[in-house]
Amino acid sequence: MQTVIIGSGNVAYHLAKAFVQNGISLAQIFGRNEKELDKISEELNIPKSTTNLVEADLYIICVSDGSIGAVSKLITKRDSLVAHTSGSLPKEILVGEYRKSSFYPLQTFSKTKNLDYKKIPFFIETENEEDQKILTDLASKISDNVMKSTHEKRKYIHLTAVFACNFVNHLFARAKEISDAQEIPFDYFLPLINETVQKINEIDPKSAQTGPAVRNDQRVLELHEQLLKDESLEIYKTMNHSIKKMYQLL
Amino acid sequence: MQTVIIGSGNVAYHLAKAFVQNGISLAQIFGRNEKELDKISEELNIPKSTTNLVEADLYIICVSDGSIGAVSKLITKRDSLVAHTSGSLPKEILVGEYRKSSFYPLQTFSKTKNLDYKKIPFFIETENEEDQKILTDLASKISDNVMKSTHEKRKYIHLTAVFACNFVNHLFARAKEISDAQEIPFDYFLPLINETVQKINEIDPKSAQTGPAVRNDQRVLELHEQLLKDESLEIYKTMNHSIKKMYQLL
Repeated sequence: MQTVIIGSGNVAYHLAKAFVQNGISLAQIFGRNEKELDKISEELNIPKSTTNLVEADLYIICVSDGSIGAVSKLITKRDSLVAHTSGSLPKEILVGEYRKSSFYPLQTFSKTKNLDYKKIPFFIETENEEDQKILTDLASKISDNVMKSTHEKRKYIHLTAVFACNFVNHLFARAKEISDAQEIPFDYFLPLINETVQKINEIDPKSAQTGPAVRNDQRVLELHEQLLKDESLEIYKTMNHSIKKMYQLL
Repeated sequence: MQTVIIGSGNVAYHLAKAFVQNGISLAQIFGRNEKELDKISEELNIPKSTTNLVEADLYIICVSDGSIGAVSKLITKRDSLVAHTSGSLPKEILVGEYRKSSFYPLQTFSKTKNLDYKKIPFFIETENEEDQKILTDLASKISDNVMKSTHEKRKYIHLTAVFACNFVNHLFARAKEISDAQEIPFDYFLPLINETVQKINEIDPKSAQTGPAVRNDQRVLELHEQLLKDESLEIYKTMNHSIKKMYQLL
């Protein structure tokens, strides 16, 4: 099976790397950003192009949501399977006369950070059972966690991921802003952060909750509000309100 | 040095355990909750009492913020050093004629969860250098990370910890609520969560930010808002607003 990856960002790089590491050869990596394509092509030894998309059996589109539609129009081979990797778009976003699918890896990707691909859940949606098998077999060479999914379910998976990953990271960024302003090294908080996450690998997060809001410690909450302003204060109030609601303290 | 721990909650249990594991014998564990005291006393082989506080050189009070004042009045030995373990209270909350101090371990404690005590930062504040040395020497037997701190700094350390630990855990709880409602196993998200935290052990969280808000992807943001309600919707809006502000997208 001839497979092509389209894109040169974080997802494209890691998918390509995962394929190559697992003995799946890629016919081409195709994209606009020549510099990034060069890097991936050299590191993983994959033919690249910014202009001529090769004929293939499978195209995996790893570009930003807003570009998927336009990029998908470049694929003209009718007898091909095309997948996008977006968490929030239906497979029908793909524009062309080929079989459409979604191939969604649930992970946060940065080029500079190595990943254990085996643990990444893949959610797959296709037009028919045969394509489902093709993509499931392919993903199973990379990961131990391959599942069928609908667009409806994928939307909620993506939404949950925004809370559990994007927002969590932003809390770390705001936390660091607070400690930086007091010249407190953020490294002090890493054992606490690591333990917080270790915990929910073992305990339900609802029963692991600690802190002033769940203790309904009004004195500390008011003290903290005086130390904060702007967005951090808004986050502080919103999160505490939500904690109190969850534990029926309001 | 005769040392007594007062309290029978998570902090009392883990501090007592850390002391015992590092060959520091405790003269007594003292508290109100007989059942919890019994458990700790038996597991760690420490004399216990709910009524008679023994004479000691050092008392470490590990009770909730609201009880520290009242509990501290039980200590009548003038020639003793008394420490509380609160992140947000000054040492002057202690009421009695003895030397006052603060002994603050920056960690989230649950009785059911083992901890690597070596990595826990301890923040110490005392009335004089001699007491500083006593508590620093003691904490150094447990941890590799022992520091001097003022009440002012400790308040900000505690506040940062609320963002980086308590709020992060609450995001996990709200995330699980969303995935549970769709019958999506929360386990799917653990590799993503673990990677999110792994990342900030290596990269500054501000440069690790991903997701629709930092991409200014209005389509996804609006789609997600339609899937949410009540507190989760409030969190969604507040966090995205704060992300956009941080990256100057507003």
